[in-house]
Amino acid sequence: MTAIKYEHIKTCKQSGARLGKVHTPHGTFETPIFMPVGTLATVKTMSPEDLKQMNAQIILSNTYHLWLRPGEDIVEEAGGIHRFMNWDRPVLTDSGGFQVFSLSDLRHITEEGVHFRNHLSGEKLFLTPEKSMQIQNALGPDIMMAFDECPPYPAEHTYMKASVERTSRWAERCMKAHARPEDQGLFGIVQGGEYEDLRRQSAEDLVSLDFPGYAIGGLSVGEPKNVMNEVLEYTTPWLPKDKPRYLMGVGSADSLIDGAIRGIDMFDCVLPTRIARNGTLMTSTGRLVVRNAAYARDFRPIDEACDCHVCQNHSRAYIRHLIKCNETLGLRLCSYHNLHFLLNLMEQVRQAIRDDRLLDFRTEFFETYGFNKADAKNF
Amino acid sequence: MTAIKYEHIKTCKQSGARLGKVHTPHGTFETPIFMPVGTLATVKTMSPEDLKQMNAQIILSNTYHLWLRPGEDIVEEAGGIHRFMNWDRPVLTDSGGFQVFSLSDLRHITEEGVHFRNHLSGEKLFLTPEKSMQIQNALGPDIMMAFDECPPYPAEHTYMKASVERTSRWAERCMKAHARPEDQGLFGIVQGGEYEDLRRQSAEDLVSLDFPGYAIGGLSVGEPKNVMNEVLEYTTPWLPKDKPRYLMGVGSADSLIDGAIRGIDMFDCVLPTRIARNGTLMTSTGRLVVRNAAYARDFRPIDEACDCHVCQNHSRAYIRHLIKCNETLGLRLCSYHNLHFLLNLMEQVRQAIRDDRLLDFRTEFFETYGFNKADAKNF
Repeated sequence: MTAIKYEHIKTCKQSGARLGKVHTPHGTFETPIFMPVGTLATVKTMSPEDLKQMNAQIILSNTYHLWLRPGEDIVEEAGGIHRFMNWDRPVLTDSGGFQVFSLSDLRHITEEGVHFRNHLSGEKLFLTPEKSMQIQNALGPDIMMAFDECPPYPAEHTYMKASVERTSRWAERCMKAHARPEDQGLFGIVQGGEYEDLRRQSAEDLVSLDFPGYAIGGLSVGEPKNVMNEVLEYTTPWLPKDKPRYLMGVGSADSLIDGAIRGIDMFDCVLPTRIARNGTLMTSTGRLVVRNAAYARDFRPIDEACDCHVCQNHSRAYIRHLIKCNETLGLRLCSYHNLHFLLNLMEQVRQAIRDDRLLDFRTEFFETYGFNKADAKNF
Repeated sequence: MTAIKYEHIKTCKQSGARLGKVHTPHGTFETPIFMPVGTLATVKTMSPEDLKQMNAQIILSNTYHLWLRPGEDIVEEAGGIHRFMNWDRPVLTDSGGFQVFSLSDLRHITEEGVHFRNHLSGEKLFLTPEKSMQIQNALGPDIMMAFDECPPYPAEHTYMKASVERTSRWAERCMKAHARPEDQGLFGIVQGGEYEDLRRQSAEDLVSLDFPGYAIGGLSVGEPKNVMNEVLEYTTPWLPKDKPRYLMGVGSADSLIDGAIRGIDMFDCVLPTRIARNGTLMTSTGRLVVRNAAYARDFRPIDEACDCHVCQNHSRAYIRHLIKCNETLGLRLCSYHNLHFLLNLMEQVRQAIRDDRLLDFRTEFFETYGFNKADAKNF
């Protein structure tokens, strides 16, 4: 008995995108889905009630950060991450690997694991597949991620091949170390950079281990968008049809749509909340930088086509005022709007799959969002 | 026809405290009441929905701050402060005088007004009774405050007498300059420091002008608590019984109760939100500093006797984690709890007046809150 079950509902006849549901110990979420990121057991500036109001169905939290603060033992003592943060819907935690490689200094990779320094205190730490599992078992999310290496882009084929093979050995160690497979589903992570042969090797290694779900990692790390799409195009067919597929760290509107078209079910990214805290808003006609003086006397909502709580109640002029004054309500309203925007986009994607018209939806969305303009790369 | 009407409901037979209602263009609030402070048209970290959920009935905002950012013209163009910040219940604005005296440099007081420097840009500014009225008329609160001088404590009798007389002349100029008396009620401010003769002179001057409400200013500026209580004891009897009485800038739990006992109807203070942002919480048994290591594994609510949304849903351990990580949700949960604590305290005070037992309530509250302990002065 596995903790995670994927239910396929239909495939879009026009695009090949999948509509489905993922059943977890804390309920079911619809796919394709966007998962807001709650790094430290809080989606920055949002309360659990805010997340429910915008219909977030699953959130992500970060093993590395929770390991350091408050410590997985405290979260476990609270009754797990759901009770600790008062969120009763599904939670996914990453493995800590990405943060070890992106945040910490002096890391040294061995077959056993990774030596590195705590980015807050400088203290020496050692993370292994077994340690990542122990922490995630203590945190208690519905979905755990295998501990992998995420090499930077670009990486040499020789290095990447050795890394992929080590990641496969680590995946097997994770599976063996996972103490609660009936309560928590463990996903494997396919690596391999932009090398088709290595993506295939990684996918085959992991599929042979029979995980209840698979992620595609090592994308959105600096490579061009067409590389991401190509990798997804050849990688997803190697993954089992009856398991969910998760594209890690991707949250721009275009990539969510393009990922769904290539068979991805789950996405996460800090992008919507990170840009929100700088006053940058996602709207149906493209990005809006609400700090700009042009909005000082603009009493329209952020997005006139948006039905979110913020757009129903607050003006650009008021939100600009809050952001200019560093008032936290400004960060909160912008974060809420951007998260709602991506959650609502995925609801539209799901509806387009139901209607067998996701490619048409993509064309319409890209046109209004401004992707066909010269500066499309900025989106 | 005045915009503000005080309805007296009853007087506590035990304490002499007043129970009443104040009717305003944006609805009615019950007295004695605590008003959360929304300096820049936002109660820091709170949304209007949060304030309604905790049953805030009226909020205060600051003329000086809104004059500088975003500018009263923008608030007016939005349709007034209620529409600008999406708050449809009563609003009171101060006159700007207190901030001019407490925040700005190089101020120079003349009969005409006060020359000073903008605390943000250093720009030279000039605030007069007429200018304060013009700004407050543009902001559009239900209750406006007359422009006064608030001298520091202690001040010489000679200085204070000249200041009180000028404040009376300024009050008359405010009344003449007030352009919307049918939409907005203007309150006079009784000054005079700890000098009974000057408080009397100030009260008589202002009462002769027949304001729809009166404030007592210049308290909680460094004087001992017994001085505040003495001033209130002799000043409130000089104020008309059929008008609301507002004690400015006072928000500690003990002073709210002691002020009500001395006939005060309205209070405001930044204290609950300011200390909240440092992780200091008001509870039924005294202050709790949630940053302390003692709470790292304490999964009880902030206040086990509290029925607020925060105490019903979040633990000390989680809130401590958020505060230690500088997560804004931590500031928000602490601010919510503290504001709820004072609003709920005033509801208890109103109930005790109804039951003719406010002195008994005071004794009980001071006992559980720890005022009878040696460190009572810290509360």
